[in-house]
Amino acid sequence: MGRALITDHLTPFFTLSMKKPKNPIPAVDIIIELKHRGIVLIQRENPPLGWAIPGGFVDYGETLEHAAEREALEETCLKVRLKFQFHSYSDPKRDNRVHTISTVFVAEADGMPQARDDAKGIGVFKKDNLPQPLVFDHCKILEDYFRWKQGGYGVFH
Amino acid sequence: MGRALITDHLTPFFTLSMKKPKNPIPAVDIIIELKHRGIVLIQRENPPLGWAIPGGFVDYGETLEHAAEREALEETCLKVRLKFQFHSYSDPKRDNRVHTISTVFVAEADGMPQARDDAKGIGVFKKDNLPQPLVFDHCKILEDYFRWKQGGYGVFH
Repeated sequence: MGRALITDHLTPFFTLSMKKPKNPIPAVDIIIELKHRGIVLIQRENPPLGWAIPGGFVDYGETLEHAAEREALEETCLKVRLKFQFHSYSDPKRDNRVHTISTVFVAEADGMPQARDDAKGIGVFKKDNLPQPLVFDHCKILEDYFRWKQGGYGVFH
Repeated sequence: MGRALITDHLTPFFTLSMKKPKNPIPAVDIIIELKHRGIVLIQRENPPLGWAIPGGFVDYGETLEHAAEREALEETCLKVRLKFQFHSYSDPKRDNRVHTISTVFVAEADGMPQARDDAKGIGVFKKDNLPQPLVFDHCKILEDYFRWKQGGYGVFH
């Protein structure tokens, strides 16, 4: 499920205790590479409005990898092949609604993405024609990704 | 704080809703390299008993990196220098008390570790003299780590 459903995720906690969670909420984002075409980004239907890497929250009892495959399918209709974990982003300010930690995957897929769930639009983009605005910290994530793609050794080291 | 304090972390949620959390709980583990000496492991004071990579839960509002530095200091008295994120482990069975997702860091430090917080003992070990038993999925994490150290390309790819 998409990030727009954040209240659903937090309902039991917030309605009963009216406190913020004690721990950040794990999420995944999936940079989906379509061969020779670019990467898939979605245009969000709910605030924050703008373009985003497909992704969402990790359910209790599922692995990061399962969450990444599930979210990619739910938001883009693409059955992705995960390549590897890229990096985990955890700045408390990355999402101004609640503190999330996103583990970003790089994946590949074939076929044509279709907007679904939290997406009102969808597109395939290359480095030089990224849409604006990019929400959350996705501008930074994509900067790191494209630097890594260009062979930037030690992006995070 | 160490993993032994899990009930403290979950108290508001469990006492009020008596339900499991909707999302896994983010944690960190830190493989601390002491130059030429080996890596630091702690002997846990609380169940599950055995040896473990130093680590613990990520607090709301702190980054993974901050949590890693804090937990390393709290459990080993070492001020570590983080080298990089190694991998995030999320198998729901990795901790049989609650579903946690641990982002593992590789770090380095100088000086002599001292057991503190959740540790009743502490030691420095090399690949061929690891203590037993190792708790959680830390045996797998260390296997991955030593394979990576030996230049195993694509440990997770």
